[in-house]
Amino acid sequence: MLKNKNQGFLNIPSTYKPEMASSSAKPSGLERRLIQKLLQFMGNPPLCFELWDGTKVYSAHADDSASTLRLSSRKVLWRLLLNPGLNFGDDFSAGLIELDGDLTDFLQNVYRSQSPAHRSSLLERYAINRPSRFKHNSLNKAKQNIYHHYDLGNEFYRLWLDEEMVYTCAYFPEPTASLETAQKAKMDLVCQKLRLKPGETVVEAGCGWGSLALHMARHYGVKVRAFNVSHEQIKFAKERAAREGLSGSVEYVEDDYRNITGEYDVFASVGMMEHVGRSNFKAFGELIDNVLKENGRGLIHSISQNEPRPVNAWLEQRIFPGGYTPTLREMCEVLEPIDCVVVDVENLRMHYAKTCEHWLQRFDEHAEEVKAMYDEAFVRAWRLYLSGCIANFSTNSLQLYQILFTRVGQPDVPWTRSYLYQD
Amino acid sequence: MLKNKNQGFLNIPSTYKPEMASSSAKPSGLERRLIQKLLQFMGNPPLCFELWDGTKVYSAHADDSASTLRLSSRKVLWRLLLNPGLNFGDDFSAGLIELDGDLTDFLQNVYRSQSPAHRSSLLERYAINRPSRFKHNSLNKAKQNIYHHYDLGNEFYRLWLDEEMVYTCAYFPEPTASLETAQKAKMDLVCQKLRLKPGETVVEAGCGWGSLALHMARHYGVKVRAFNVSHEQIKFAKERAAREGLSGSVEYVEDDYRNITGEYDVFASVGMMEHVGRSNFKAFGELIDNVLKENGRGLIHSISQNEPRPVNAWLEQRIFPGGYTPTLREMCEVLEPIDCVVVDVENLRMHYAKTCEHWLQRFDEHAEEVKAMYDEAFVRAWRLYLSGCIANFSTNSLQLYQILFTRVGQPDVPWTRSYLYQD
Repeated sequence: MLKNKNQGFLNIPSTYKPEMASSSAKPSGLERRLIQKLLQFMGNPPLCFELWDGTKVYSAHADDSASTLRLSSRKVLWRLLLNPGLNFGDDFSAGLIELDGDLTDFLQNVYRSQSPAHRSSLLERYAINRPSRFKHNSLNKAKQNIYHHYDLGNEFYRLWLDEEMVYTCAYFPEPTASLETAQKAKMDLVCQKLRLKPGETVVEAGCGWGSLALHMARHYGVKVRAFNVSHEQIKFAKERAAREGLSGSVEYVEDDYRNITGEYDVFASVGMMEHVGRSNFKAFGELIDNVLKENGRGLIHSISQNEPRPVNAWLEQRIFPGGYTPTLREMCEVLEPIDCVVVDVENLRMHYAKTCEHWLQRFDEHAEEVKAMYDEAFVRAWRLYLSGCIANFSTNSLQLYQILFTRVGQPDVPWTRSYLYQD
Repeated sequence: MLKNKNQGFLNIPSTYKPEMASSSAKPSGLERRLIQKLLQFMGNPPLCFELWDGTKVYSAHADDSASTLRLSSRKVLWRLLLNPGLNFGDDFSAGLIELDGDLTDFLQNVYRSQSPAHRSSLLERYAINRPSRFKHNSLNKAKQNIYHHYDLGNEFYRLWLDEEMVYTCAYFPEPTASLETAQKAKMDLVCQKLRLKPGETVVEAGCGWGSLALHMARHYGVKVRAFNVSHEQIKFAKERAAREGLSGSVEYVEDDYRNITGEYDVFASVGMMEHVGRSNFKAFGELIDNVLKENGRGLIHSISQNEPRPVNAWLEQRIFPGGYTPTLREMCEVLEPIDCVVVDVENLRMHYAKTCEHWLQRFDEHAEEVKAMYDEAFVRAWRLYLSGCIANFSTNSLQLYQILFTRVGQPDVPWTRSYLYQD
């Protein structure tokens, strides 16, 4: 199941040679000034850079409690100055950048410091529309992108996900609920919003390891067809459905969501729109239009960003190839042309921060096993990724929306939302 | 307070001369075929046209229970064929078109029959962007538009609104709640979503007769500045605040929302965005950005349509000059560029249908008084308007969204929405 150890897990090019050798040459005045510029550009978070020779450069807002980033060589500094979005992650993973202080706290400070006026630059607006090797998400490319992340091996995800293997935002009725309780509560929340009735048909676009489809069939009596291009995940899901005697109610299909056929009462997509890609949003809407019955209803659950900008280069190239995080406006744009009406939008970003806290804690508890499966750089990269998620959601930089919608021809909606909050 | 009786209340041009004289000439084959075409265009609602000579033309879906529209003359038929959007309303108001059957049922059938594929036509897309005498909503024009509707006289609105004079969608905790209960529940819902705290400052853009501002100050201890260009409404609101000893907490300002100054903890706009006009949405967002504190929050409550199209010509010219009904995407577009994040979206369309049912019932109970104030055409026009609202909201053709948002810099959000549903 597990692949050979190599840098391939993070898509790092073979030309990248981390070097630990520290230079003894003193940093120049220019270098110190450029670090100050970088700190200003970041909105002066409480942060200190410690350079290879021990020189410290403080941001305007740094005090005694500020985190310290230690850069191991001049080369690392210049890589950071030239392309911070990509190289911070790579050099942090390689251990060439070390942090004194808590990683999540550090990232939260960075996100909080970003000036509200720090809008997407012209360059970003160009980048978001540029053709790239990932952006198009052809059927083949989409498969490769998904393999990269989701076929890392079920053993890996089993180490730190809940027992149901749910790899999307949970819903904590109380902040102190366990991750297991919260993932079940999320599945119930989705089912209750959709008001599933026994005998109805559901199609799920992107089903992960299949837990939601099973939950729907077991507790709400619906028939589900669930699509996913990840071979590892579909295999796991099929085996589980067979073991639990639910193969008659849930059909798992190893295929792209664009190949969904048939007509269903309900469309559900939890944590998949992030992988669709901006240029495919229109087609995503048309797909929903094609497969949803005239009186149908649906739910899209997706991470969302506040304004359109490309995904961070490191995240897009090392962790989640092919992704694009839609804004709420872009999510509405998917539904507006297809006779679907938004009934309810809930923002669960604090629940995603909490979910990632649980994941990070479990991940850290199993760091040695992960290191044995992959290597130290992989452990550091995933720690950075999970901490970054906590920081993004908790500081309002990323949102998690659940959008409930119905066909225009479906006049039957609950009178109020109070039914969701009764025991 | 009341204006002289004349057609000016409905903006009907003086060249419009209703004529009751019925023609005895038989309708031609061409005329009958054109009526069939019109019925097809409407999606064949269960409907029958009865022409001036007694000839009946049935739609493909008409049965014995179908409503009958009686056209009093050949001229009325041709006016309907040439510009149904405007002339149906005018000729119905003038009594030249009569309906056998319930007006709301008839309109619901019409809206339900509209094919989902009946998308905004090229003409509509042109119309929505065309310059028009109303679309620009300059400060002066906006005033005239608002006077047209809201300065009809407080005595008029008092006849059929609730005791608090709230002229926006109510919130019925139960469908059987009274209008009075539901309007208070709506005001509490808004205040609770906004989590108003004593001592905070609120700015209200478009305050009607001032009830929400008073409610906020009285029950939530906030200080409110409330803006409205309607002289009649502001006068009423000021007198009421003085009478109720709340002038120290609520300041009513007779001015356009674009002239709001200052900085506030909370921005609220209930039933005003419908009057802003499409070309002003960007400026509306910038206004919010200018007046909302860095850690502020806000709520926009507005009617919304499913896809961008011009407001019905009759409604726009006779009832609500200058209005444009935003889609949810367009509402999000207002907030996306200004560092505000959507926390929650609730669709209250069924509550607006219910609200309008209450209004129509009360209006009908006072029809004789309204007729004495204005004239019969005015009564018929407003009955058509209120019935049309019921039909639009109940058939999913129009939505009512409450969008709650916070500044990006405001991380403090409630853990779940359950607090809104506890006693």
